[in-house]
Amino acid sequence: MVQYARARLDASFAALSDATRRGVLEQLGRADASITELAMKFDMTLTGMKKHIGVLEQAGLVTTEKVGRVRTCTLGLRGLHEEAAWIDRHRQLWAARFDALDKVVEELKRKEKVDGRKRQ
Amino acid sequence: MVQYARARLDASFAALSDATRRGVLEQLGRADASITELAMKFDMTLTGMKKHIGVLEQAGLVTTEKVGRVRTCTLGLRGLHEEAAWIDRHRQLWAARFDALDKVVEELKRKEKVDGRKRQ
Repeated sequence: MVQYARARLDASFAALSDATRRGVLEQLGRADASITELAMKFDMTLTGMKKHIGVLEQAGLVTTEKVGRVRTCTLGLRGLHEEAAWIDRHRQLWAARFDALDKVVEELKRKEKVDGRKRQ
Repeated sequence: MVQYARARLDASFAALSDATRRGVLEQLGRADASITELAMKFDMTLTGMKKHIGVLEQAGLVTTEKVGRVRTCTLGLRGLHEEAAWIDRHRQLWAARFDALDKVVEELKRKEKVDGRKRQ
């Protein structure tokens, strides 16, 4: 289960590590689109766009359906909830670490002030 | 500026696409650690860990400082705020799309009920 969740986070973060793929997700957030439409919109060959869609599909972020000769892309049922949760957890840790650092700096400043007064 | 932000998101999402690198960030969220300590903790060669730290450093998520023979790793000043913002925006789009889909399904159900009644 943990292994599976890890592999899924690996795949989705890798899918998000490309500006075109993030753009495709934003586009599909507004409306479904065929691979041809997406290739035109992002000024890319059909083959190039197919590869990007393949990566997004593997990560579960996009689903596709072929009707006749047209393959239509839709946002997948996975909604980046786990990715958001991971990042939120990390941000909390991060904030706590920097709060702790702030306290150390404040304590040093306070001591410096006290020492300064003693020297006067 | 937009190009720079894109490249930064590319680098940070790529950095997050590996379970070991995510583990290192979680570890550094608790306490600073040397590369040797991290290599031991994640049961990895020093060379392997150095590569992972290099990727995290390039993405601005980790900073390192060498004192004597020990290189210590600390969480970087960047705190995944932009990554969280991107994911949040996408989740809002995603939720809106699926809400719209829910409404279509409800409308279809309602019509079916009305048509059913008419046929009776």
